[in-house]
Amino acid sequence: MSGTSVAPTPLLKDELDIVIPTIRNLDFLEMWRPFFQPYHLIIVQDGDPSRVIKVPEGFDYELYNRNDINRILGPKASCISFKDSACRCFGYMVSKKKYIYTIDDDCFVAKDPSGKDINALEQHIKNLLCPATPFFFNTLYDPYRDGADFVRGYPFSLREGAPTAVSHGLWLNIPDYDAPTQLVKPRERNTRYVDAVLTIPKGTLFPMCGMNLAFDRELIGPAMYFGLMGDGQPIGRYDDMWAGWCTKVICDHLGLGVKTGLPYIWHSKASNPFVNLKKEYKGIYWQEELIPFFQSATLPKDCTTVQNCYIELSKQVKAKLGKVDEYFIKLADAMVTWIEAWDELNSTSDIPKGPAK
Amino acid sequence: MSGTSVAPTPLLKDELDIVIPTIRNLDFLEMWRPFFQPYHLIIVQDGDPSRVIKVPEGFDYELYNRNDINRILGPKASCISFKDSACRCFGYMVSKKKYIYTIDDDCFVAKDPSGKDINALEQHIKNLLCPATPFFFNTLYDPYRDGADFVRGYPFSLREGAPTAVSHGLWLNIPDYDAPTQLVKPRERNTRYVDAVLTIPKGTLFPMCGMNLAFDRELIGPAMYFGLMGDGQPIGRYDDMWAGWCTKVICDHLGLGVKTGLPYIWHSKASNPFVNLKKEYKGIYWQEELIPFFQSATLPKDCTTVQNCYIELSKQVKAKLGKVDEYFIKLADAMVTWIEAWDELNSTSDIPKGPAK
Repeated sequence: MSGTSVAPTPLLKDELDIVIPTIRNLDFLEMWRPFFQPYHLIIVQDGDPSRVIKVPEGFDYELYNRNDINRILGPKASCISFKDSACRCFGYMVSKKKYIYTIDDDCFVAKDPSGKDINALEQHIKNLLCPATPFFFNTLYDPYRDGADFVRGYPFSLREGAPTAVSHGLWLNIPDYDAPTQLVKPRERNTRYVDAVLTIPKGTLFPMCGMNLAFDRELIGPAMYFGLMGDGQPIGRYDDMWAGWCTKVICDHLGLGVKTGLPYIWHSKASNPFVNLKKEYKGIYWQEELIPFFQSATLPKDCTTVQNCYIELSKQVKAKLGKVDEYFIKLADAMVTWIEAWDELNSTSDIPKGPAK
Repeated sequence: MSGTSVAPTPLLKDELDIVIPTIRNLDFLEMWRPFFQPYHLIIVQDGDPSRVIKVPEGFDYELYNRNDINRILGPKASCISFKDSACRCFGYMVSKKKYIYTIDDDCFVAKDPSGKDINALEQHIKNLLCPATPFFFNTLYDPYRDGADFVRGYPFSLREGAPTAVSHGLWLNIPDYDAPTQLVKPRERNTRYVDAVLTIPKGTLFPMCGMNLAFDRELIGPAMYFGLMGDGQPIGRYDDMWAGWCTKVICDHLGLGVKTGLPYIWHSKASNPFVNLKKEYKGIYWQEELIPFFQSATLPKDCTTVQNCYIELSKQVKAKLGKVDEYFIKLADAMVTWIEAWDELNSTSDIPKGPAK
């Protein structure tokens, strides 16, 4: 306001970790330096653990490779995918912060229509810190934004909104298409900057992409499991979708909000559609069963924690989706393992540990 | 494409009526001339029927004042509001076209961010002619738009979408706020152009504003009743809201889509917040009961026409909202009268008429 030259402390500097799954040197961080450098990074190295990942100087980070994951989780490491970016959820588990932002290493800083670099993290933090409106749609989108409000006909009792658990950001340039759409529209680029943040209404599912995603670990962390993908598994590229569907059902049950829209990142490189088709093809027909399953999933009232909800959901997955393919029986078991591992790493000091437990 | 100077035939020229409720001369049409002149107008004159409304030359129109409404509907004219823009729905009833666009006479042509005049009607037609996606949210918004598509994780079986029944457009400049918000934020203006059209998901209610609205009369017309407002009624400014809630419940039941977003019009004049408060104050507390009512309203499977659905809804209004205030008993009766009048004016020739019926 007063034109001072003292840089303000970045929002949530000590309360947010940035989780990055990678198999390569993190040169992409150079472009993000002005926005990310104040924050702590959790790098989850996928693939060959003997490979050395170079991180640009000046970043504060911890890095976990497969050997670290196996050492820390022991037999429970089986729930963390290998050779798939689904491994990123290990970073959510080892974080000790309230908030997580996760981004892929092929995502660069996008520009807004005025040509200014978009601080994606700052926008995610804004989204997470202000309420969501899952119970009634506001036609001017985010009513808490400067210059907007609730419109005529919006019930006053709903104007306090609900706590925001998830902020789903979007991508300019390479759109997040499945392999068939990539094959049909190889040259399509997303050039439309839509200046809106909106809440996905209660009861509505959406395709959550993990490329540019933030969430409140305390509110929803244990539901952000990215499933069993990649090495030894029959599918890939459904890790974030799975997490999104589980998360949305649980957010709806617990009265939490999920937002989508701003901020944009610049997605630089399309992945190979032929490779993607191989990864996706089972998912493409399974999802026809998964969506009705999640659309009709209800959780009992006595499920009041994310962990309880997630365990209950794992039982429904086993009972109902186990009939679709035995993969879902394995996945349901992994969901339970994930929660056990989460609780082990995140037990608070006031809960006694050890044999007496 | 080829730079030809022959003007193309406007879309749906003979299949769409523009309905305008008014109490004044329609000078505002001058600004809309390039876009509206090819279409037929239905002007519903509110207030004193002896007053002469001037319509700029060159427009093709029919005009109905209160005397006309009374003459055409007889005793059933009681369902059409007087001294309130809710009277516009008479225009929907007398139209013989498949599509309706309705606009207020204080709405002018807005400009897009490039400075170009927005042809609001053309955008509404585009919205109505392409499918909606009420069953699953697409994070890139309208998947049928140029440069967009369904994103990864969107079930293929849902990509055909649903027929679009309603296109709800927005407003730059004066936002559509209720009286309390107007009073608190008298200087707020909507300056944000959000370049998106999206489907309101199934099961989600929204505040439908009647200022800039288009719909498919054949698909949803009989549900577009704007209720009892104004002269002799205890509320005003809830006409479009009422229509929107009824319409949305019926669209959800019948598998039809409702879109919101583009196009924008320029809303020129804020109405008096003190007058509005008087009109709205009962609505403001009643809506706290109305929203849960509509959120939980379900229609029986054998209601397969809009008329059936609407009559069923009127029964539920009488049974459940009649307890809130006796006004809703009167409104429920008016809903039935409206359907009777609609069917009378819109009976097709293959349905026998007269005493034998």
